[in-house]
Amino acid sequence: MRRKKIIVIGGSAAGPKAAARARRMDEFAEITMFQKGSDLSMASCGFPYFVGGFFDDRNQLLCTPTGVVRDPKFYWNAKGIVAKVNTEITKIDKENKKVEFIDIETGEHGSQEYDKLVITTGATANMPPILGTGLRGITTLQSMQDADYLRKIRDDGEVKEAVVIGGGLIGIETLEALNLAGIKLTMVELLPQLLTFLDWEMAKFVQNYLKTKANVITNNGVAEFIGENGKLKAVRLKNGTEIPCQLAVVAIGVKPNVKLAQKAGIQIGSLGGIIVNEYMETSVSDIYAAGDCCEIKNKITGKNVLAPYGDLANLEGRVVGENVIKGNVAKFSGTIQTGICKLFDYGIGITGLSETKALEAGIDFVKVVNASPDKPGFMDGKILITKLLAEKSTGKILGAQCAGLGDVSKQLAIWATSIIGGLTIDDMVDADFPYAPPFSLAIDHSIATAHILQNKMNGVFEGISSVELKEKLDKKESVFILDVRGADEYAETRLGIGERLIPLGFLRTRLGELPQDKETEIVTYCKISLRGYEAAVLLKAHGYKNVNVMEAGIVGWPFEKEK
Amino acid sequence: MRRKKIIVIGGSAAGPKAAARARRMDEFAEITMFQKGSDLSMASCGFPYFVGGFFDDRNQLLCTPTGVVRDPKFYWNAKGIVAKVNTEITKIDKENKKVEFIDIETGEHGSQEYDKLVITTGATANMPPILGTGLRGITTLQSMQDADYLRKIRDDGEVKEAVVIGGGLIGIETLEALNLAGIKLTMVELLPQLLTFLDWEMAKFVQNYLKTKANVITNNGVAEFIGENGKLKAVRLKNGTEIPCQLAVVAIGVKPNVKLAQKAGIQIGSLGGIIVNEYMETSVSDIYAAGDCCEIKNKITGKNVLAPYGDLANLEGRVVGENVIKGNVAKFSGTIQTGICKLFDYGIGITGLSETKALEAGIDFVKVVNASPDKPGFMDGKILITKLLAEKSTGKILGAQCAGLGDVSKQLAIWATSIIGGLTIDDMVDADFPYAPPFSLAIDHSIATAHILQNKMNGVFEGISSVELKEKLDKKESVFILDVRGADEYAETRLGIGERLIPLGFLRTRLGELPQDKETEIVTYCKISLRGYEAAVLLKAHGYKNVNVMEAGIVGWPFEKEK
Repeated sequence: MRRKKIIVIGGSAAGPKAAARARRMDEFAEITMFQKGSDLSMASCGFPYFVGGFFDDRNQLLCTPTGVVRDPKFYWNAKGIVAKVNTEITKIDKENKKVEFIDIETGEHGSQEYDKLVITTGATANMPPILGTGLRGITTLQSMQDADYLRKIRDDGEVKEAVVIGGGLIGIETLEALNLAGIKLTMVELLPQLLTFLDWEMAKFVQNYLKTKANVITNNGVAEFIGENGKLKAVRLKNGTEIPCQLAVVAIGVKPNVKLAQKAGIQIGSLGGIIVNEYMETSVSDIYAAGDCCEIKNKITGKNVLAPYGDLANLEGRVVGENVIKGNVAKFSGTIQTGICKLFDYGIGITGLSETKALEAGIDFVKVVNASPDKPGFMDGKILITKLLAEKSTGKILGAQCAGLGDVSKQLAIWATSIIGGLTIDDMVDADFPYAPPFSLAIDHSIATAHILQNKMNGVFEGISSVELKEKLDKKESVFILDVRGADEYAETRLGIGERLIPLGFLRTRLGELPQDKETEIVTYCKISLRGYEAAVLLKAHGYKNVNVMEAGIVGWPFEKEK
Repeated sequence: MRRKKIIVIGGSAAGPKAAARARRMDEFAEITMFQKGSDLSMASCGFPYFVGGFFDDRNQLLCTPTGVVRDPKFYWNAKGIVAKVNTEITKIDKENKKVEFIDIETGEHGSQEYDKLVITTGATANMPPILGTGLRGITTLQSMQDADYLRKIRDDGEVKEAVVIGGGLIGIETLEALNLAGIKLTMVELLPQLLTFLDWEMAKFVQNYLKTKANVITNNGVAEFIGENGKLKAVRLKNGTEIPCQLAVVAIGVKPNVKLAQKAGIQIGSLGGIIVNEYMETSVSDIYAAGDCCEIKNKITGKNVLAPYGDLANLEGRVVGENVIKGNVAKFSGTIQTGICKLFDYGIGITGLSETKALEAGIDFVKVVNASPDKPGFMDGKILITKLLAEKSTGKILGAQCAGLGDVSKQLAIWATSIIGGLTIDDMVDADFPYAPPFSLAIDHSIATAHILQNKMNGVFEGISSVELKEKLDKKESVFILDVRGADEYAETRLGIGERLIPLGFLRTRLGELPQDKETEIVTYCKISLRGYEAAVLLKAHGYKNVNVMEAGIVGWPFEKEK
């Protein structure tokens, strides 16, 4: 029996998964995994938590659930996989179906033949093309070495001020980690908002929360790293501001590592990733790719995207591992670009399309923003804000964004499943979800969100987003704004945008205080706009023709408040 | 304009929801809600948490999120709904479309006409037909008064021993509450298992956990309550055992309150609930019903069930509220009988069909039990056990049960959504869920479960459940049992069922220790059976024809262990 020869280039996430899956498909295949660095199967998504002191033993990032470090010995004994670390592939010779490599430690060269080759070369962190990037004190958080470096900074306790450059997922996770290390922080984001995969207002909620923990600067990039004796001492921004700091973490995204593939003539996409088909096979047959180095299909738009997430890398690797042994039998169906991140007690995430992306894709949609608790007040429920989009003609769920102190993860998992399954708003309004007070409200936040969007689609609920209302106010449009909360709530916090307070309980008897002209544009709200909704229904019943509820109420107001 | 007259009988969950929804559909309808007791909109699912001291103010069970108690004044001012408390409906006169009532406090009689009538009379807690039920110290936990009574017992601190009769959701929640009150507890369940909506082994995991908190007796009912001076002093079981106690909480299920409906000639189903159509309308037109008093359709089997859950009551009430105003436009699609409960740090729940129910329904299914963590070890992940069923011919998800110290709620929400959407195992294997280490593993527990079931359906993974293995052992069948964990793990805990230990890392070199006969039945396992799976693949590659993995490993072993 001739043994199949499988070579995997890369040993972080997709690579080991592909190798292990291939092994389980064929005990006798010769599987070799090449890794340029010294570590294997690093849980790189865990780096910020190691840096932040959630745990102290770096081996926890490298070991199996039972505590065995995933080194070459482990791979050989437990999986029958040859893992060559500190070994760089220098060339893919697709004609002769072999790879050339160099042992980085000894300088020795070698080559090895394959029947099937798997490219999982990952991605590299971007660095801004500015002066001073070579200074000590500047790092990314992408490698185990980066993690060790930042952890040492935590443990040494000497760095007092740091700048995090980039307000994406990694930037935000890094910011939390360094805050927990007692470092004073500034976050700098070139674009007008953090977390650019979210819609503006959702990112603004995060930013408002983040401001309680760090100085946040948007719309401003880094112009120069300023050093002294080779060490970082400040960051100069494009607007000239200098921020003193002893540490700068650059987290402005990653780009796929495709040099090897490119040199071998494998097709690279317009986004810079390796092009693969549904079997994760590249343009060159018998060569597969998976993980951050690839472009994959967005299931909703059908367009290619870069989606450098650890979960997808694993799922893609699983498909590749099967296909290199069994031929192209397993398919990877694509991504809906689900992402989540934690920021202290706050969770933020998205699944499917944002409003911005839906507009780009030219999809006709309806949307709503809902603020309501995840659990009953007596079980210490926390408010979540969900923005939900559905296709206008079919009601099919397109995307959901969720932020807040509550259980964001469950909400996003529900919406992700609904998008994968092509469910509609009507499917969700009477969904039978696990309910008990420690876990949810009787009507789960997700269902409540679906209710409002269904009401909106049926014309029962007419809503206006806080952003749209702000635009009207900025344009000096005349709008009668009605806050229907209690006087005590109003005394405690209020928008201060010219609103009139009439508590809902008095509205039926105080209709006379409203404008006489029934065509007047009226916007109602309360804390989360449930009472605001009831007020709008009431006003419409009394002949007002142009009444909208400000969705998500005061909780959903991302702008400055009077109080 | 003639105002529509809506009468709602019942003011707990479905009733207030129907009334409020009707109001939002029609500001001018005359809506009256009759409530036999004095409280309205009690969060009855929260009673155990009030008793258990999770919060101290009983008003939290009765008030809006902003702290307003939902009394008749609130209903009139905020909702324009007349709520008549302490008022019992004595007759539904369907011919004349009116109800007759009596004010319980004044004894005054009256009657009121309706255009549409809504019956939300709920359910009553069952009492066993035995001696002594009138003694002081015996209660249910169904009414606000019950909750107050038990809370007083907590606060007084005089009761030292209590018995909880019935091991269902309420029984278990009550047991937690009383344990937190410092009371020594015994749980008595007539049937061979707790939580009878779960499969036996899943209920056994809960029971094993519960045993660390209370004395648990199954297969034994209560024969008599024994008193002294009118006060409970012990419970005598069917087998003669006497358990001294000063308190007994009876939680042996509820039965629908249908007397009024029955007297009015409304059709009652074979399960004892009011029969409704998809619009929640009863057999008598213009009379609707919702909540615990109804039978509703199980979406998977198409058969009627009783599903007395607070979330469904609200969702049904919403449908009724719309239909009584707009005509039959809104549908309630049915239940998949999702349920969840918390037991200290442990969560337990189900959505869709259990194996028992699937067998009853005559559905041909495949199943798997998976034990794996909810999050990475370095983020303090906890193991969950999920039992998943899918239809054999289509791979359509039929049901999932989940138990453990981890995030059970998210898992069940995912599976519930997948069942509602008709998703298959193939849809779930590359699901794009929210991943970051604080929330999940790179491959979420749900996806890992789907992977194993897909492997099983494809013949890649051949599994045997712990229950099936135990049956073989009890029948003295000859099985070679192979534990492939490390020696240190074996020293710490082991099954002691005649297993041989060969750690996976040594298996390739120690194949000689296995039976020579390649037809020998071999069962492999490890802690959670991931290594057990790899061992089985290896053995099969070496010619063993009859190798099965014991699903979920040692974690999934519900029986006694040697150590």
